[in-house]
Amino acid sequence: MSPHLNLPNRVTLVEVSPRDGLQSESYFVPTDKKIALIERLVSVGVKRIEATSFVSPKWVPQLADAEQVVAGITRYSDLVGFQGLVLNQKGYERVRHLGLIREIALVVAASESVNHRNSNMTVGESMSQLTRIVRTAKADGIRVRGTIGVAFVCPYEGRIPLERTLNLTGMFVESGCDEVALADTIGQAMPDHVYELFSRVRERWPDIAVAGHFHDARQLALTNIFAAMQAGVGTFDCSVGGLGGCQFTKGAPGNVATEQVVYMLSEMGIDTGINYSRLLDVAEFALDLTRPRIPRSSI
Amino acid sequence: MSPHLNLPNRVTLVEVSPRDGLQSESYFVPTDKKIALIERLVSVGVKRIEATSFVSPKWVPQLADAEQVVAGITRYSDLVGFQGLVLNQKGYERVRHLGLIREIALVVAASESVNHRNSNMTVGESMSQLTRIVRTAKADGIRVRGTIGVAFVCPYEGRIPLERTLNLTGMFVESGCDEVALADTIGQAMPDHVYELFSRVRERWPDIAVAGHFHDARQLALTNIFAAMQAGVGTFDCSVGGLGGCQFTKGAPGNVATEQVVYMLSEMGIDTGINYSRLLDVAEFALDLTRPRIPRSSI
Repeated sequence: MSPHLNLPNRVTLVEVSPRDGLQSESYFVPTDKKIALIERLVSVGVKRIEATSFVSPKWVPQLADAEQVVAGITRYSDLVGFQGLVLNQKGYERVRHLGLIREIALVVAASESVNHRNSNMTVGESMSQLTRIVRTAKADGIRVRGTIGVAFVCPYEGRIPLERTLNLTGMFVESGCDEVALADTIGQAMPDHVYELFSRVRERWPDIAVAGHFHDARQLALTNIFAAMQAGVGTFDCSVGGLGGCQFTKGAPGNVATEQVVYMLSEMGIDTGINYSRLLDVAEFALDLTRPRIPRSSI
Repeated sequence: MSPHLNLPNRVTLVEVSPRDGLQSESYFVPTDKKIALIERLVSVGVKRIEATSFVSPKWVPQLADAEQVVAGITRYSDLVGFQGLVLNQKGYERVRHLGLIREIALVVAASESVNHRNSNMTVGESMSQLTRIVRTAKADGIRVRGTIGVAFVCPYEGRIPLERTLNLTGMFVESGCDEVALADTIGQAMPDHVYELFSRVRERWPDIAVAGHFHDARQLALTNIFAAMQAGVGTFDCSVGGLGGCQFTKGAPGNVATEQVVYMLSEMGIDTGINYSRLLDVAEFALDLTRPRIPRSSI
């Protein structure tokens, strides 16, 4: 029992509101507003942003303007790492054609039920497709994050065995991913589980970058971030204003709010490079985007 | 970096809703309702309950019925440890006269500003008075908890130096207290601070029982409990339904909700002896007590 915890001096936050957040809304946020949100995030010191998704507009009409958004933010590319979500080869071709995205995120779910629901493929089929995309992207000089959804708990299958998530992590690592993110997509992971899984990932692949993506459905996102830091994780996804819900539980809190994470970290002396008080203004701006049809006076 | 955290197998929760929770309301909850709340808490497996407060009804009219409440619950005394809050000799005389309370909690604040505001005394004056009460109570065969309010952060003075809280802890220990509770009265403590302070307490006084009392104003109560457990703490205060506010910030969340704590602990395999699903019904009951003047249909 040491009076000092294993905590990092510095943490990198990946802002997911422009993609994960706005995708959860039932309406289309205008392209200029999306760009304005990203500009504000850049201006307060955010260094990595999931800017949009290259998924068919048929499935995600909210982000049908991916190319325009990226074109609008490219001038910040030297300041910030922008990431685009890609689910299949077709999406990757859009990224390649656009030529402006330097990092993609690929997603597989750790459970067959969720993976089938999301992609109509088995986990094995998804991984074959994704590892092919990893190799192409790496050859094209693009950074790749492999994200494992429901890495801890599945809404249908319950707790995911550690070995299953570790196997998928291994496949992403071997295919050449630069980073692996483990996502508690439904906000049901417990901090001991988070600590144990990340500790094992760090033991087996000490050189791979790892990231945690936590939802706040059970108000445990901050605790999970705290536990993950103790296991050596220094990169976390978050969403300003807590934008984004949970695709499995209507009305449940979604992504952990960036301002909550920055507050906790900065109060513990952990640097994020983000200006907290100005971030609060961005949170207001982001929340306004998600209630555009409600007159301010009635809120 | 070990894949196993230092977590206990069992945690004792001290339910503070009948005192800390109901005291925060602006009206008087009828005695029979208070007794009904305590009975329901007993029935779901709660083993320690702060039942009421022996403070002047002039200051806390909400708990003017302390004697009646205690008389109404005495039949559960073999199942549950009931605690009464005492702030001065006069309050202690009421406890002694009643002859039914086996445990008292005494409170001092770690900052001069808050202690003066609460008791119109300096911290030193409070401690002299309280340590005298500890000795009397111990001679009377009554268990004593010494609680240190704003043990981490003061709303006026900011972060409390570790040594100040440690000194007060030492005074309580030396006077004969059975347990020392450190309270984050305003919900501003950070988990690294919580870990460090409790680790030092446990190092210096390995044989004294320690407890953590966390508020959720910054949504960090669960993280702080998680951090405190890693420092060896196995007893936490909580309040069903999150009853109770913050005396310094109107509208801010107060005590961490018992059901949130039980959920996190039970999901990590840590036993509390409390039935979670039945506890949710008690939370509903408790919340109904605090909105008695609002017709249910309008909520």
